This record gives sequence, structure tokens and C-alpha cells, in this order.
Amino acid sequence: MSSKPISIYELETDDKRFLSPFCWAARFAIIHKGLKPDVIPWHFQEKDKIAFSNQGLVPVIVDQNKDGKWVNDSWEIAKYLEKTYPDQPSLFKGTSGESLCCFFVKSISSGAVVPMMQTIIMDLYNAQLPKDKDWFRKTREDRFGAPLEKFCKGESNVGAFREALQPCRDVLKDYQYLGGSSPCYADMYLLGIFMFAYAVSPVKLLAKDDPLHSWRQRMLKAYDNPQTAHGQKGYPESLE
Amino acid sequence: MSSKPISIYELETDDKRFLSPFCWAARFAIIHKGLKPDVIPWHFQEKDKIAFSNQGLVPVIVDQNKDGKWVNDSWEIAKYLEKTYPDQPSLFKGTSGESLCCFFVKSISSGAVVPMMQTIIMDLYNAQLPKDKDWFRKTREDRFGAPLEKFCKGESNVGAFREALQPCRDVLKDYQYLGGSSPCYADMYLLGIFMFAYAVSPVKLLAKDDPLHSWRQRMLKAYDNPQTAHGQKGYPESLE
Repeated sequence: MSSKPISIYELETDDKRFLSPFCWAARFAIIHKGLKPDVIPWHFQEKDKIAFSNQGLVPVIVDQNKDGKWVNDSWEIAKYLEKTYPDQPSLFKGTSGESLCCFFVKSISSGAVVPMMQTIIMDLYNAQLPKDKDWFRKTREDRFGAPLEKFCKGESNVGAFREALQPCRDVLKDYQYLGGSSPCYADMYLLGIFMFAYAVSPVKLLAKDDPLHSWRQRMLKAYDNPQTAHGQKGYPESLE
Repeated sequence: MSSKPISIYELETDDKRFLSPFCWAARFAIIHKGLKPDVIPWHFQEKDKIAFSNQGLVPVIVDQNKDGKWVNDSWEIAKYLEKTYPDQPSLFKGTSGESLCCFFVKSISSGAVVPMMQTIIMDLYNAQLPKDKDWFRKTREDRFGAPLEKFCKGESNVGAFREALQPCRDVLKDYQYLGGSSPCYADMYLLGIFMFAYAVSPVKLLAKDDPLHSWRQRMLKAYDNPQTAHGQKGYPESLE
């Protein structure tokens, strides 16, 4: 398929750390579809840069193959790509895949993202640009209902995050991927969470003998080990 | 398709209340496949009746279309039916559907079944046959690590159960069923939980304005409102 790259506005810091699990999920969806992501760095509060999308959050994609059509929100982007590029590898793989991936996203975002944030939020705060720190603190403290230092439990909380992923581990007993014998959008969404965390935090979210650890290695290989720029390391050979 | 009924051993009491969500899920899977379930009532501890399956739990199915092949465990039964009757309506609907339904089952069984049991366990205990009550209490108290009376929080706990189903509700904002425009095994598994609870407990697990309430009505209609024999009412017109 001959096509132009898909522009994607992604949240990052000046040192090229990518700071949004949702942007990662959208980027993997673009790659999965055999398209090339053209990443446009974006910082919190740069509302003017994405004003064309009539809202203020990333990811936003712009598809030059379709007259510059834009789509915001990672889930809407996944659905858009699936509908617009039906002959490319499927993100959902079947007529139940879209709604079941929706369940997966909602389930993980309500069950696993909070314990992950409780583990790494101070690392995430420290990774923000100086100009964004006060804003980041205020919006997150409003959301979590507590000062960051109180909400954060640090590395001691990693067990709660791992426990929340037990249903994923159960699936991997019998399947190579959450999508079965090949990845589906659920895999991309979960990988996005790890990429995001890895970009800012030294905490080992998974033990090496965790089935999710080898799943993550398989996924990274399948999606070309994208650069997280964590500690300027470039492409991590293995997300230890 | 001309075929013989599928025999299914299901847990029930003398007054025909069906007491296992897993048996319900397996029965719905049989119906979904356009096959007729031939329900064989089974009581806890009747190990001899299902000794042929080399284990002691129901559901167990026996498929006379396939030389009396037996399968136990609701998930194994679903996979068996899908594989054996590929031309009948699919339970998983796509190559990602099986692993994503596996995720659904694991996620709901770890997240929603416990708060449901905390809500209705005393009703469940009271519905047991007199000969099974002591055994039921002992095995459950060992499992839950507390006396039933302490583990049970009663109707006041219904909010925790409803909250645990929020990801399902989120899906139903955009889809008619968890499987999209038609049910998949995830729908059957969830309906099984409600059928089970309804058979023993008067607690209203869902508010009438809950999107899951109308989903449940659609599902009951799709699967012929099977008899729960709750309070001898026969076929409930609407699971209020």
C-alpha cells in the first residue's frame, strides 16, 4: 500500500520522553495498520497547536491520505483506522473484537492504571517540563483528591499493579497475545501503559519471570522497539 | 441442522432452582449453537453420577452427536462447541474473540463475583439442600476465610457489585451487546451470573435504569427466557 505518513501529536518532554499511554496506543495502532507515524511533539497546554481539533488533548492524528482528516482520542483513532484501512491488518480481528477491546480498555483503565499511577506518579511529576509542573500537580491532585506525595505509594505499590493484571496473565497461559495468536488493540493498549511508565520511571513494573514480561518482549519485537528515550538510552534492548 | 440434544449436568436443588453461573453459561452456549440442552439435574456431592468425567464438578456435557464425547468446565465446553460446530453461530465471533472472552471471564470472576457473593451468599446457603448445607458452609468458609455470616454483607453491598460492572456498562453505551451487534460468550457468561443470583436471592442486583438492566432483558429474549424456578414463578417475564 502506498500512502503518506499519519501525523500524530504526542505528549513529550524536551528530552523526548513520551508521556502518554494513550499516545502510545494510537501510535501502535498506526504501525499495526502498516502506516508510518509522523510524530509531532506536543507539550501540555499547547492548546493552540491542536486547536483545529476543537479540543485540547492528545493524541490527535491528521491523515493526509484523506484530505487532512483529523481524529482525536486514542479509542476513536483506533476505530477510524480500522474503518478507513479495512484491507490492512485488523486491530480488532472479528465482529466481537471491537466491543471486547472496549471492555478491555475500560477494565484496565479503571483497575490497573490507578495502582500504576500510585507507583510512579512522583517520577511522572519530576519528568514534566518546569513550566508544566504546577499545572500538572494541580490537575492531578484535583483528580486524585490528595496531594501527589500522599497519593503516591512508590515502588512498594508495584504488587497492587501486578495483581490488577492477573486476568491478562490468565489469558497468556493459553494464548500468545491478548488477541490470540497475534496482537489486537488490547495488546497495543497494554503495551502503551508500559512504554509510558518506562519512559519516566526506573521501577520494574514486571518481574522477569512474569508471563507478561515475555509477552512484552514479543510485543516490542513486533512493533520495532520504539524509542522511549528513557535516560537517553535510545531503543531499549529489553525492558527489564 | 439435524442433531441430538446435548446432555448437560447442572447443579440444582429439589425445587428446580439452578445454582451455578457456570452451568448457565454452558447452557446458553449450547442454545447459541442452535443445539438443544437436555438438562440433567445434579446435586453437590453426587460424584458418582459424573465419575465418567474423572472429576467432581459441573457443568459436564455429553454429546451424543459425537459418540457420547464428554467435556467438563464451562470454558472448555464453550471451546468444544465452537470447534465442533463451526458452521453454527459463533460464540467468539472472530480470531481475537476467544482470548478476549477469556479475559472477560477472568476479569469478571475476579472482580465482580466476590462482591456478588458477599451480597447473596446467605440466600445461596439457604437454598441448598438440607443434606448439603454443612458441606456447603465448610467449603465456602474455607474459600472465603471467614464465617458465612461475616463474609456476607447483604443487600447493602449491592453497590460494590454494580460498581464492579462499570466496564460492561461503558461498553453498552456504544454497543447492544458485549459482543457488539449480537451476543458473544462474554454476554452468556454475564447473563449466567444474573440467572444464578436470581434463582436464589430476592436482591435486585441492577437498578431499572441501569443500561445493564435493558441488556439483560434483550439477552433473556434472545435466549428464550429460561426457567429459573425462583419462588416457583416459572419463567420470569422480566428479571426486575
